[in-house]
Amino acid sequence: MVNKEVNITRLDAFSYREAIKDGEAIVLIPVGALEQHGPHMPLYTDAMLSTKMAELTAENIDALVGPTIWTGYKSQQRSGGGNHIIGSFGFDASHVIETCRTLVREFHRHGVKKIGFINGHYENYQFLYEGVDLAMRDIAHSGETTPTILLLSYWDFVTDETIAELYPDGFPGWDVEHGGVMETSIMLEYYPDLVHMDKVMDLPAAELPPFDAFPVDPSRTPESGCLSSAAGSTAEKGRLLTKSVVDGMSQALREQLSVQ
Amino acid sequence: MVNKEVNITRLDAFSYREAIKDGEAIVLIPVGALEQHGPHMPLYTDAMLSTKMAELTAENIDALVGPTIWTGYKSQQRSGGGNHIIGSFGFDASHVIETCRTLVREFHRHGVKKIGFINGHYENYQFLYEGVDLAMRDIAHSGETTPTILLLSYWDFVTDETIAELYPDGFPGWDVEHGGVMETSIMLEYYPDLVHMDKVMDLPAAELPPFDAFPVDPSRTPESGCLSSAAGSTAEKGRLLTKSVVDGMSQALREQLSVQ
Amino acid sequence: MVNKEVNITRLDAFSYREAIKDGEAIVLIPVGALEQHGPHMPLYTDAMLSTKMAELTAENIDALVGPTIWTGYKSQQRSGGGNHIIGSFGFDASHVIETCRTLVREFHRHGVKKIGFINGHYENYQFLYEGVDLAMRDIAHSGETTPTILLLSYWDFVTDETIAELYPDGFPGWDVEHGGVMETSIMLEYYPDLVHMDKVMDLPAAELPPFDAFPVDPSRTPESGCLSSAAGSTAEKGRLLTKSVVDGMSQALREQLSVQ
Amino acid sequence: MVNKEVNITRLDAFSYREAIKDGEAIVLIPVGALEQHGPHMPLYTDAMLSTKMAELTAENIDALVGPTIWTGYKSQQRSGGGNHIIGSFGFDASHVIETCRTLVREFHRHGVKKIGFINGHYENYQFLYEGVDLAMRDIAHSGETTPTILLLSYWDFVTDETIAELYPDGFPGWDVEHGGVMETSIMLEYYPDLVHMDKVMDLPAAELPPFDAFPVDPSRTPESGCLSSAAGSTAEKGRLLTKSVVDGMSQALREQLSVQ
Amino acid sequence: MVNKEVNITRLDAFSYREAIKDGEAIVLIPVGALEQHGPHMPLYTDAMLSTKMAELTAENIDALVGPTIWTGYKSQQRSGGGNHIIGSFGFDASHVIETCRTLVREFHRHGVKKIGFINGHYENYQFLYEGVDLAMRDIAHSGETTPTILLLSYWDFVTDETIAELYPDGFPGWDVEHGGVMETSIMLEYYPDLVHMDKVMDLPAAELPPFDAFPVDPSRTPESGCLSSAAGSTAEKGRLLTKSVVDGMSQALREQLSVQ
Amino acid sequence: MVNKEVNITRLDAFSYREAIKDGEAIVLIPVGALEQHGPHMPLYTDAMLSTKMAELTAENIDALVGPTIWTGYKSQQRSGGGNHIIGSFGFDASHVIETCRTLVREFHRHGVKKIGFINGHYENYQFLYEGVDLAMRDIAHSGETTPTILLLSYWDFVTDETIAELYPDGFPGWDVEHGGVMETSIMLEYYPDLVHMDKVMDLPAAELPPFDAFPVDPSRTPESGCLSSAAGSTAEKGRLLTKSVVDGMSQALREQLSVQ
Repeated sequence: MVNKEVNITRLDAFSYREAIKDGEAIVLIPVGALEQHGPHMPLYTDAMLSTKMAELTAENIDALVGPTIWTGYKSQQRSGGGNHIIGSFGFDASHVIETCRTLVREFHRHGVKKIGFINGHYENYQFLYEGVDLAMRDIAHSGETTPTILLLSYWDFVTDETIAELYPDGFPGWDVEHGGVMETSIMLEYYPDLVHMDKVMDLPAAELPPFDAFPVDPSRTPESGCLSSAAGSTAEKGRLLTKSVVDGMSQALREQLSVQ
Repeated sequence: MVNKEVNITRLDAFSYREAIKDGEAIVLIPVGALEQHGPHMPLYTDAMLSTKMAELTAENIDALVGPTIWTGYKSQQRSGGGNHIIGSFGFDASHVIETCRTLVREFHRHGVKKIGFINGHYENYQFLYEGVDLAMRDIAHSGETTPTILLLSYWDFVTDETIAELYPDGFPGWDVEHGGVMETSIMLEYYPDLVHMDKVMDLPAAELPPFDAFPVDPSRTPESGCLSSAAGSTAEKGRLLTKSVVDGMSQALREQLSVQ
Repeated sequence: MVNKEVNITRLDAFSYREAIKDGEAIVLIPVGALEQHGPHMPLYTDAMLSTKMAELTAENIDALVGPTIWTGYKSQQRSGGGNHIIGSFGFDASHVIETCRTLVREFHRHGVKKIGFINGHYENYQFLYEGVDLAMRDIAHSGETTPTILLLSYWDFVTDETIAELYPDGFPGWDVEHGGVMETSIMLEYYPDLVHMDKVMDLPAAELPPFDAFPVDPSRTPESGCLSSAAGSTAEKGRLLTKSVVDGMSQALREQLSVQ
Repeated sequence: MVNKEVNITRLDAFSYREAIKDGEAIVLIPVGALEQHGPHMPLYTDAMLSTKMAELTAENIDALVGPTIWTGYKSQQRSGGGNHIIGSFGFDASHVIETCRTLVREFHRHGVKKIGFINGHYENYQFLYEGVDLAMRDIAHSGETTPTILLLSYWDFVTDETIAELYPDGFPGWDVEHGGVMETSIMLEYYPDLVHMDKVMDLPAAELPPFDAFPVDPSRTPESGCLSSAAGSTAEKGRLLTKSVVDGMSQALREQLSVQ
Repeated sequence: MVNKEVNITRLDAFSYREAIKDGEAIVLIPVGALEQHGPHMPLYTDAMLSTKMAELTAENIDALVGPTIWTGYKSQQRSGGGNHIIGSFGFDASHVIETCRTLVREFHRHGVKKIGFINGHYENYQFLYEGVDLAMRDIAHSGETTPTILLLSYWDFVTDETIAELYPDGFPGWDVEHGGVMETSIMLEYYPDLVHMDKVMDLPAAELPPFDAFPVDPSRTPESGCLSSAAGSTAEKGRLLTKSVVDGMSQALREQLSVQ
Repeated sequence: MVNKEVNITRLDAFSYREAIKDGEAIVLIPVGALEQHGPHMPLYTDAMLSTKMAELTAENIDALVGPTIWTGYKSQQRSGGGNHIIGSFGFDASHVIETCRTLVREFHRHGVKKIGFINGHYENYQFLYEGVDLAMRDIAHSGETTPTILLLSYWDFVTDETIAELYPDGFPGWDVEHGGVMETSIMLEYYPDLVHMDKVMDLPAAELPPFDAFPVDPSRTPESGCLSSAAGSTAEKGRLLTKSVVDGMSQALREQLSVQ
């Protein structure tokens, strides 16, 4: 299957219908946000990364990629710096929930029975969960057969081996990854024109307490808006991380969605 | 203004903040849909066209372009073939309203005072109107100064002269344009790889009654899903249409948003 | 059928049940607004006109008329002068949608299978559409048979011949009709006591741009609140307009709702 | 005050603005329902009665009458027979709440500072209360001065003397009045053409337990749909009841709304 | 059945499942509020009383008691003093409705077919009614068999004989009971440590008009926050009241829910 | 501070007002759920634990404890076994959000300026976050000063030292704690009568994948409903855990809420 278009936004309707007609098609839906990612990466970073991870995985398992949800939940200080920062666009929980719920409803109406949400914005997860849960309830109540849906955040598929290799001095945890080495490295591999390594602010990782405080104290977020430094990011690391993610997601999706 | 990035999704947060800091920045927000556009154009057509019109206009008047809303309202038979067609993804009114409302709220929080919504999906208009209206009410109630917002559909700026030139045998009306000569011609000019003129189904324009009937009678929509034929579309026509649209929108935005 | 009461608000429940018991009854639901209509017509104009058009059509095709929805969407400047004007009462989209949705649900529960919404307030249309769409989805999900529903705005049935006859100097378009010759003439025919031709402000038609601007610039609406002048309105014109509308609506409803 | 129009639905916008311009105007908003009222009275009974009570009171205290809300809450078995009965149209709580909330918001925007809701459908009361409460909160949060609002059900103003006179054998309580002597008598006085005393079903009053059971047991509602018999209703009784109501409401409104 | 735990909050899941597995189990759900009850009783009074009444009745009819809803509707001046008082926590109608709707949905999912809501906060009733009504509609639409549900306020089961015995000087009505003799006496019987008779403010009962006025006039509520005096309350009266309530509720529940 | 009542549900309104009148009072609001916790612990476990942690902390820092929210979000398989299990009661996201939002609004209305939510049900966190965020936005928009609010889950305050001491063979992670050693040990310390160690099912910890799958595969949850075994739980461990939690929370609350 050379050069086949996997992203349905670029497919025409006739080709899309052909691709899903047997009821076995898998659709992966990337979910990101529009959120500040420091001085060195674009606002669309989470959307770009989740889309890229979805597309690479789709090529692997012969799936389609659905439209990218960029209307993500509000940035939270402990995982994204906080939604008080100019440059982050936060949608309310109800909106994220309904976006997800609608997409499940529409793909289900089209006859798609296997869906994967590929999350790239930490804050989205619980709201996507609720969106899928409500959609499943809607469909069950209507008496129809519910589709099979997987919900995941792509970084949860980075293996321990990859982490050990990339973070020889110890892994700080995904919670302070925002704008850090992982995201920046993958961006360098796939969207090098949009990454400005010269602008990276090499600041210490944020030290955030085990609670959220309102109103947010802006001083707790580093001036860069990133929770850890992107210094040391390379395209090579991006390749390694991507391979780990795509391999892991491909395997999980194959197993869960019964790909022959 | 050479090569300046106008689309904020590709800007980093620091550049975005710099660009909007004086309160005079204009942000144009494209609004489309994910909707079947016949066998010859991609599902993302409305999103692509509104984004392109916004970006060209933005270059013209030194504006920024916001994220593209693709979660549009349900396709209606008399303007888009109908949402029963597989390949169209319809969002409920409440969702379209809230997307728009949230973006106004967030840009307002950032300090942006001049916003234009550039609609490219007929069915969206009234729901965008409601979204803006509610956002303005929210802001007014909070005691802050409301921004200035323009809401338009780009085809309303095609001049009568351009119409006369492009449709010498008489203009069938924008209502049957869905997937027709205008959209296809502009796509040919800007996204030729995504248009398949060889797949165009050259069928008579739909003859639709002056009302909506539920449940929809699918036989009223031509088999192509397009309401008029795209035959005769050319990139040249796309250029003419675009020029008319961009000139008109630029002038309106300049006047309404007091661009110096 | 002499003097038969067609409006169910004036029927007792036993007669209503008798009238709908065979499942073939058609119910027409008028939809208007409470909105300023200049110095010469009452706030209830849209409600009165849609109700009258519905009642005359109902007598023609042996239908019933449901309750009149007057809780219409907010007046928009380009079709109704704008909701900033004191004397217009605007309901949010969600409310108009739910009113319509509830009525479909309740008539469906009663066993009514043929419903027509007769709209008389331009701004309502898309929200009524959504209301019907959601109600149809609700009913379909519950496993029951959906009713057949028509949604129309009455002026869309004025024939080209009637327009040519009544507007010999050229038709300005329905978009500037608000408070103009059509509405005033029909009111003169049916509610002459409520029309004050001596108060008509004979101002030029509004010249409105092809977009909406927020906040609304009140100076774009003529001082009368009407978008075109009612001067020249006569009951005779009202009769002609009504005949055109009622004939057209009757034919459409007969065909669509399979009236024997 | 001879022949002055009190109902704003029949006023033109200029007269309406004149009438409310000094900020002292009182607007009374009738609230009813569309609900079965037995074989002898129309579905619109509650709307007609609340409107009539409001109009008579308005003439008394020089007030205006707003539009009649007929989209009332679902009929409950213990006060209206139950919403399972064909002929009753029940709106959800959220809808009744929002209707009320919107009207307060719009009258407030117009500058009206004194509002009375005149309820004529038992089931509405708590939802109207919530609607007013939310509107007051909205207005307070926006930093504006809240209007003064009265919420009442008209029968609560029938005096003990009138009750003693009209029910010499003992008053059964307002809870079983639905379609009974009070409503029928007032209808006979004001809308005699719409009351069919020959159709009255003279059944014993319903004996309803002190709880609600779901699903409703239809056999608990008398076959007439009325909770007590309308036999014995007369226009004379209607006059007495009306006088008691209008006197009481006028006094309360005068005192509460500081009418000079 | 000695010492059997009836309250499911204290049951483990395995015992709960055992208790409801045959589909005949009755679950009583107490509903209260968090509301000021004068200087002599705790904020949780309504929750405690409804829970106690439910537990005693459950022991009587071999039922279970569900979790206590304390998130009640806003205190109203004519039945609870008003929600302006510090110490009352008022939830919006939509919230009370959804709490009730969710519990019905969840118990239904568990297989419970017989539910009784035992209300102890006057203001809740209509919102609980709506919650049950919507839940029944949800379940019916999903094609499943609706449960049988009873909704009651416990004081409606105090017999006339008990009232005559406890109020020899005449019964002031339940409307002014808030914080009065009934509630205080039952609290004295079951939660004596939480009642401070020495703090009772022996003030005349509130004289409240037959309407609600907004904004609330705080001076209409006695300084105690109670609508009638608790002076004269005794545990003995509490026992009598409780017996009357529990006997009446037990009988009603047995009959309605077909307890063998 | 001997025997002072800290839980406001047991306080009378006058004492409550006294306690909060200076604007320095801290209120801690426990948040739990009604959820299966295996065969050995009650459904109310999360509510009981969060309440106990809040009360002990309150005594420490001289705070009050607010009402316990038990209407928690749906149990998720990876943290609570899943909401498909009979015995778990799941509330939708919108409900959890609104509960939290309302409590902030009401405490704010009362003049309370320092609030801590003490979460005891993993799944709640993001929805509580949204609830607080919306409440803060509401208050900010109304022009009033926002309170200071802390949101935390109590187990996040167990120190590494305590973990090392209690889990000498390695800590399995809080994600599989549901019904495990931590919860069971604290319950043993404070509610020994409600824990049945003899019923503990000593099963291996659940091995859950790094994603959620819908519909849930029930076989992934151990038969006990607990994600790890409670064997080895002791009251002594409960004391150690509690001390760690209460010390940590007390310190954080003191620092964040500026307790003198």
